[in-house]
Amino acid sequence: MIVVMKSDATAAEIAAVISKAEQMGASTHPIYGADHTVIALVGDMTRVERSVFDAMAGVLKTVRIQEPYKLAGRTSHPHQTVIDVGGVKIGGQDVVVMAGPCSVESREQILEVAHMVKEAGATVLRGGAFKPRTSPYSFQGLGEKGLQYLAEAREQTGLPIITEVMREEQVQMVAEYADILQIGARNMQNYGLLQAVGKVQKPVMLKRGISGEIKELLMCAEYILSNGNYNVMLCERGIRTYETATRNTFDLNAIPVLHRASHLPVVADPSHGTGDWELIPDMSKAAVAAGADALIVEVHQNPDNALSDGDQSLKPERFAQLMADLRRVAAAVDRSIATLPTERETSVNGRVAALA
Amino acid sequence: MIVVMKSDATAAEIAAVISKAEQMGASTHPIYGADHTVIALVGDMTRVERSVFDAMAGVLKTVRIQEPYKLAGRTSHPHQTVIDVGGVKIGGQDVVVMAGPCSVESREQILEVAHMVKEAGATVLRGGAFKPRTSPYSFQGLGEKGLQYLAEAREQTGLPIITEVMREEQVQMVAEYADILQIGARNMQNYGLLQAVGKVQKPVMLKRGISGEIKELLMCAEYILSNGNYNVMLCERGIRTYETATRNTFDLNAIPVLHRASHLPVVADPSHGTGDWELIPDMSKAAVAAGADALIVEVHQNPDNALSDGDQSLKPERFAQLMADLRRVAAAVDRSIATLPTERETSVNGRVAALA
Amino acid sequence: MIVVMKSDATAAEIAAVISKAEQMGASTHPIYGADHTVIALVGDMTRVERSVFDAMAGVLKTVRIQEPYKLAGRTSHPHQTVIDVGGVKIGGQDVVVMAGPCSVESREQILEVAHMVKEAGATVLRGGAFKPRTSPYSFQGLGEKGLQYLAEAREQTGLPIITEVMREEQVQMVAEYADILQIGARNMQNYGLLQAVGKVQKPVMLKRGISGEIKELLMCAEYILSNGNYNVMLCERGIRTYETATRNTFDLNAIPVLHRASHLPVVADPSHGTGDWELIPDMSKAAVAAGADALIVEVHQNPDNALSDGDQSLKPERFAQLMADLRRVAAAVDRSIATLPTERETSVNGRVAALA
Amino acid sequence: MIVVMKSDATAAEIAAVISKAEQMGASTHPIYGADHTVIALVGDMTRVERSVFDAMAGVLKTVRIQEPYKLAGRTSHPHQTVIDVGGVKIGGQDVVVMAGPCSVESREQILEVAHMVKEAGATVLRGGAFKPRTSPYSFQGLGEKGLQYLAEAREQTGLPIITEVMREEQVQMVAEYADILQIGARNMQNYGLLQAVGKVQKPVMLKRGISGEIKELLMCAEYILSNGNYNVMLCERGIRTYETATRNTFDLNAIPVLHRASHLPVVADPSHGTGDWELIPDMSKAAVAAGADALIVEVHQNPDNALSDGDQSLKPERFAQLMADLRRVAAAVDRSIATLPTERETSVNGRVAALA
Repeated sequence: MIVVMKSDATAAEIAAVISKAEQMGASTHPIYGADHTVIALVGDMTRVERSVFDAMAGVLKTVRIQEPYKLAGRTSHPHQTVIDVGGVKIGGQDVVVMAGPCSVESREQILEVAHMVKEAGATVLRGGAFKPRTSPYSFQGLGEKGLQYLAEAREQTGLPIITEVMREEQVQMVAEYADILQIGARNMQNYGLLQAVGKVQKPVMLKRGISGEIKELLMCAEYILSNGNYNVMLCERGIRTYETATRNTFDLNAIPVLHRASHLPVVADPSHGTGDWELIPDMSKAAVAAGADALIVEVHQNPDNALSDGDQSLKPERFAQLMADLRRVAAAVDRSIATLPTERETSVNGRVAALA
Repeated sequence: MIVVMKSDATAAEIAAVISKAEQMGASTHPIYGADHTVIALVGDMTRVERSVFDAMAGVLKTVRIQEPYKLAGRTSHPHQTVIDVGGVKIGGQDVVVMAGPCSVESREQILEVAHMVKEAGATVLRGGAFKPRTSPYSFQGLGEKGLQYLAEAREQTGLPIITEVMREEQVQMVAEYADILQIGARNMQNYGLLQAVGKVQKPVMLKRGISGEIKELLMCAEYILSNGNYNVMLCERGIRTYETATRNTFDLNAIPVLHRASHLPVVADPSHGTGDWELIPDMSKAAVAAGADALIVEVHQNPDNALSDGDQSLKPERFAQLMADLRRVAAAVDRSIATLPTERETSVNGRVAALA
Repeated sequence: MIVVMKSDATAAEIAAVISKAEQMGASTHPIYGADHTVIALVGDMTRVERSVFDAMAGVLKTVRIQEPYKLAGRTSHPHQTVIDVGGVKIGGQDVVVMAGPCSVESREQILEVAHMVKEAGATVLRGGAFKPRTSPYSFQGLGEKGLQYLAEAREQTGLPIITEVMREEQVQMVAEYADILQIGARNMQNYGLLQAVGKVQKPVMLKRGISGEIKELLMCAEYILSNGNYNVMLCERGIRTYETATRNTFDLNAIPVLHRASHLPVVADPSHGTGDWELIPDMSKAAVAAGADALIVEVHQNPDNALSDGDQSLKPERFAQLMADLRRVAAAVDRSIATLPTERETSVNGRVAALA
Repeated sequence: MIVVMKSDATAAEIAAVISKAEQMGASTHPIYGADHTVIALVGDMTRVERSVFDAMAGVLKTVRIQEPYKLAGRTSHPHQTVIDVGGVKIGGQDVVVMAGPCSVESREQILEVAHMVKEAGATVLRGGAFKPRTSPYSFQGLGEKGLQYLAEAREQTGLPIITEVMREEQVQMVAEYADILQIGARNMQNYGLLQAVGKVQKPVMLKRGISGEIKELLMCAEYILSNGNYNVMLCERGIRTYETATRNTFDLNAIPVLHRASHLPVVADPSHGTGDWELIPDMSKAAVAAGADALIVEVHQNPDNALSDGDQSLKPERFAQLMADLRRVAAAVDRSIATLPTERETSVNGRVAALA
């Protein structure tokens, strides 16, 4: 860490900073510049907060040198993490496409769309049973009934399922059904929830908050990792900016930036990223070209009558076309679109059967 | 609601929108413009989501006319809400100042600072027992022990206490100690938590998320109100923008905007709003001049050694000076700084005694 | 245009709005809803400012239905514009790559890099002779001497040249040398400059301002078009958001959004878009996958010693690799990377010879 | 300046940075930490760009320690600048209120409103003769005729005038009429224009760009100062954020931040800052409480029929009430609202007479 003193800092103030840093086990290197004295602190500063020094008299600012995310960062974990979800590998050579409706609306709806997205080539089924909604008066999801329908869809199709968990007390229950636990953007910094999913042994997809900084996203992943769950993937889903032409600004830069900073797989969500189904095909292709390890796309058989997010859902035929296009783009960047492993390779159906 | 059709929308697409709107109980008024057909829907549209129409073929966009927050909005509740917290009235003529440390660090610390802020004129004591921290390796608060120290500080000083509740399962426990439950910025859209505090009868201070839109803040208040708790105050605490000269951009515009849109009291938090103790005095005065009903200010007897947020905490003597300055500014806008009610007016000590 | 009245608007206020709209030639359709009266104005409202109505008593807000950019918008110009720059076609089937250094630093430097980027497959040479710099103490460009070196590079390589014009009084002079006039992000709303380039018959590349909304970018294009110059291309170059992990947030969503809204070609600038050379390859591929008609990339033979923007410049060998990768991605989206027309197809060398 | 090397930087890369820094005249202090080597550069680095080092192999990032604005910064100019405009002092003890219409629309209009704002207590008259407009089809101002009317208003009232200059070639002409030259937000980084106003001896009010960082605003002031004009005041006028409840986010934090960083007077513009006349009174009071040295407020005798910005203009009677309120708030922060100097103190009328 670097502590920059104000230009009028006194010798006593400088000495106090040095003394506090040394109490914390750092060795200190003061450098006396023309306008400012700068004190370099050497040692493990990852668990020391900058505010400790920012609060001290005579301090102008502090600059962190080490990344504070030890487990999520690439520095100490140079090898890419690959997460195995019932034989579907996320973070490896193949690009995984997860697809399905925003919400599970009925047994018939989810079973039908599950077969459709499988047919088109998706290898993970998405669907929300618990829905965080802006309005208390909106449809809030089918709850555990929705999870049961998802499990039935998995049994019929062999597709592993990803679904959101919103509350700590639901983690155990959702983990019994889901193959991947999704933490939504609004809960990126719900630390109790992060700790809870850190204690179960199910893969977690952590979405970037709508104004989450990339370093904050990595610190939130650190909450999960430091509780013992290493199967974490990060999801870019659009950030809030001044631009209103799209609902969100889908930040594809985050894909190579996260790959550089972290070993965790990166998922892109063009549905929430843009909020506009017409933009999904172009932005999905762009996400794969930028290096995404997986996509998560909303697909609904009848978006005009969807109970949520119809405006950002693709119809199944458009999704099938998109899958064909993605295969070409993936090949152009030396990857392929993942396919479902054959029965003998996967353990999903077996486990599901046991559950059922 | 207004539905704007694309310039090349077909008659069938227009008819489908009209038909769907009428199924929802709206009467429809199509207007055929030069480039676009526009369909005005008349009726109670507050519970209808725009995405229902945005998803339909031929629709360019929708525009909501009615405010979707029925309980939080001024349209149906023109009179200002005043919340009584042990005789301290928030939302009325007097401006309430809440003060205290970021975290409760020890019994001695909170008792000492409680007396200091009372001496200076604060009428509510703040202090965190459960702390949401960006890093899993940072101090996470004293937990229930911290609440007990806060209760003891209230008993000694008569100051009602405000403290954060972070998790649904803690709501009952925190509500037994606190006079005001604080929902932090990271949890503005933690809907399970909002519903939980909506079911207890303790005043709630709901902080605007770091990228919360004002209309989202009001929808989050609606979650609490619609669960039966009408004692909600809204807190502006700085938003995330491109500017990095301050940690956050303290958005004082939110004060008059919230007062125009809602009947709920508005609190301003200059400590988090700016993240910089040197800016707190000027911005506190500005917040009162802009019409804030209350301020919440971090005060620490020794910011250099605070366990959290020392850089945005005032020392007690600076806080005392600020209180003197605020009295003058409040007077200049025809208000006063609230004072603690005398024993006979307040019920706080009584209840505290019962608890202890 | 739609005018939404406040819920307590009086009959006289409603009548005043209707009267003013009718004076402006609109026919009016008032709709009386439960909470609000809404007045739809039908007629050509593209030149009427919303503030005219927003200022009136009783008005809550206005909503514009028609796009205010008549010449730049697709509604009245459905066919894609293709701009011919000395035989290189921008906006057509092929993706054009423009490349070269941030600044022209010397005759040797620009000639060397021109040959390098031509060799790798670029078809337009970029280079700044007039440089807008944040600091008055930074290198400000070689001025007309730089333009002469660029013209010499064109003569040697046959590559048309794009260079920035910063000031109205330089438009004529720069237009004598350049094949494409670049308007930089800081000047997106420098209306005098826009009018000036609207009056010369040279193609213009208009960069989106660092906080330019897409609709503002189109209105700025409208300034050029309405002065008689129809050869305008739009350039996405990164926007300013709260995220600091990248210098800017390269907003690839803008590519399909601009294509939907406008017939003008769209250029993507991954160098400024990210501000980080390590991210340029992935984001260039993503931009082509998202549908960009052209890329503009900074290439420098020795970025460590560049006088500006070395940190966002590719070395020639990395650029050559990128070109190879882009050919594959372009093919995957049914496009090709443009190649330089043979001598007989192009008029650039002829004109350059005449100049020289 | 601090250069932080990547964790895998080689000894040769470190040596190259040291060598380059020493060539630039800096002495270097390498510090070898656990993960990173950090090199502190001591010497005058204000004119060295960070990108020089950011571009070098093995460099992770650079951190600037010295402020790059030598003339605008407080470090080398600790005393507050006070600008004398015809006897009206901006930056001193008194808060100056500038008021008038967005645009000069006619001789009668500007003369009438000039008398009205003088009556209410304003001491500078604002009014635009050249108007930067988002649409090329909007009213663009009366041009020099508008300046003549402004001069006549000054002659009649004794109020100095502030008006915008948009183009370099107009600087001389506008400077002949105006007492203060205004640089608008869209032109904050129009460096040619900044240099041009730096060469005339008229006070300049430089508005912060809609996404201008505070340090960029100071660098733009540096462009003016370094050309020899020291009479520069800075104006906060609202920034662009994600929040759409107000047209802009009026960033009052900028007032104390600018006062801390710079000796230049700070003006606040609540009209553009909020874009909503209903918010102007509260936010004007807040700006004075936060320490603004001046306000600039749009006042129009008939906002419903204003040719521009009627929605953010106060009516004269509301402005008069605001002036009364501001006197109280100013007093509460130990300041007063400036009054017009008597004839013998001022040179404005004299000079105007000479011009006329």
